[in-house]
Amino acid sequence: MLFFTQCFGAVLDLIHLRFQHYKAKRVFSAAGQLVCVVNPTHSLKYAPTRCAAVQASTEQGVLPPCHHHEVVHDPQLVPCTCPLFSCPWEGHLEVVVSHLRQTHRINILQGAEIVFLATDMHLPAPTDWIIMHSCLGHQFLLVLRKQEKYEGHPQFFATMMLIGTPTQADNFTYRLELNRNQRRLKWEATPRSILECVDSVISDGDCLVLNTSLAQLFSDNGSLAIGIAITTSKVHSSEAEM
Amino acid sequence: MLFFTQCFGAVLDLIHLRFQHYKAKRVFSAAGQLVCVVNPTHSLKYAPTRCAAVQASTEQGVLPPCHHHEVVHDPQLVPCTCPLFSCPWEGHLEVVVSHLRQTHRINILQGAEIVFLATDMHLPAPTDWIIMHSCLGHQFLLVLRKQEKYEGHPQFFATMMLIGTPTQADNFTYRLELNRNQRRLKWEATPRSILECVDSVISDGDCLVLNTSLAQLFSDNGSLAIGIAITTSKVHSSEAEM
Repeated sequence: MLFFTQCFGAVLDLIHLRFQHYKAKRVFSAAGQLVCVVNPTHSLKYAPTRCAAVQASTEQGVLPPCHHHEVVHDPQLVPCTCPLFSCPWEGHLEVVVSHLRQTHRINILQGAEIVFLATDMHLPAPTDWIIMHSCLGHQFLLVLRKQEKYEGHPQFFATMMLIGTPTQADNFTYRLELNRNQRRLKWEATPRSILECVDSVISDGDCLVLNTSLAQLFSDNGSLAIGIAITTSKVHSSEAEM
Repeated sequence: MLFFTQCFGAVLDLIHLRFQHYKAKRVFSAAGQLVCVVNPTHSLKYAPTRCAAVQASTEQGVLPPCHHHEVVHDPQLVPCTCPLFSCPWEGHLEVVVSHLRQTHRINILQGAEIVFLATDMHLPAPTDWIIMHSCLGHQFLLVLRKQEKYEGHPQFFATMMLIGTPTQADNFTYRLELNRNQRRLKWEATPRSILECVDSVISDGDCLVLNTSLAQLFSDNGSLAIGIAITTSKVHSSEAEM
C-alpha cells in the first residue's frame, strides 16, 4: 500500500514539475531555451566560514594556500576550496566541477541561454538554489540565495561565478532576466571567479537583489523563473550604448 | 565681500554641475540624449497623508471626490490632488502639470530618451528627486525616493507615473536603466497613473528598488544617472521574447 502511495506521489511530482516547466517555457519562449527546475538547498553554513578565515588571514598579510590569486593562473599548482558549502573538501580548480556534481549533486546544463526555475521561494532563509551552466567552453555556477541581511527581512540575491580564475572571468558578461506581468528586470555584469567568496559578493550587494515583494511580483505559484545568458565581453563597449 | 564670495560659490556650483552633466553624457552617450541634473527635495510629508485618508475612506465604501476613478475618464469633471506633497491643492487632471511646475518648481523635459542625474544621494531619508518628462504627447512624472522601509536601512525606489488616467497609462511602457562599471540594471514596466498613490506603489515595491550598496555601485561622486525611455506598449508581445 505504501509503495502505491509513494508511486502516486512521484507521478504527481512529475506532473507538477512538467507543468512548471511548461509555464516557464511559455514566459521565456525563445526557441531552444532550456528550462531547468532547481529545487532549494537548505544552507548548512552561515556559521563562521572558510571565507571569514580567508579574509582574516588576508588582513594579516597571510594568504591561505587555497586563495593564492597571484599563483592561480597556473591551475596545476593551485588548490581551491568549494566555496558554497561547509564541506571540508579541498581540490584543484579543474576538479571543482566534478566535486560539485558528485558530492553536492548540482546539475550541469549546456547552452548559451537557459531558464533557471527556482521552486519553493517561500522557504525560510537561509536557502540556496544552485546550478552549473556549461557554456562557451567554461563552467559557471549560478547561485540564488534567500538571506536575511536585515533581521526579519529576507531578500533574494542572484549571482553567477566562473569556475575559473578572475582573469578568465573578465572575458565574460552574464545576464539575469526576470519577466512577468508586464514587468521586466535585467541585471548584467562580469561574473566573479569562484576563487572569490560568494558570501562576500552577496554581502557587498554586487549582484541582482530582490526584495520579497519584488520576488513575489515575478514569481508564479511559488517559483521564480530567471533567464540566464552568457556572452564574451567586448571590451565593454556596451557602456556607451543605451 | 559677501557678494563676491557668493558669486564665487555660484561659479563653482556651475562648474560642478557642468562636470556632472559631462560625466553623465559620457556614460549615456547615445546621440540626442538630454541629461538633466535633478537636485533632491526633502519630503515634507510621511505624516498621515491624503493617501491614507483615501484608503481609509475607500475601505469604508466612500470614495473622496478626488479619487473617483470611475468618473476620471472625463477629466473636465474630476478634481485631482497632487500626490507628492503635503500641499492642500486640489485641481483637475489637466492642470496638475502647471501646478507641479509653478508651485513645486518641478522641471519638465522633452524627448523620448533622457538621463536623470540625481545629485547628493548621501542625503538622509526621506528624500525625493522628481522630474516631469514630456513624451509621446503625454506628461510623465519620475520619482526617485530614498526611504527607510526598514529602520536604519534606507533604500532607493524609482518609478514613473503618467499624468493621466489608468487607462491611458496602460498604453505605455517605461524603462529605467543604470549603467556603470561594467554593470547594468534595467527595469521595464507599465507606468501607473498619477491618480494612484505614489506612496502605495513604493510600499508595494512595484518599482525599481536599490539597496544602498547597489546605489553606491552605480553612483559616481554622489550622483546617480538613470537613463529613461518611454515607448508605446505593443500589447506586451515583449513577454514572449527574451
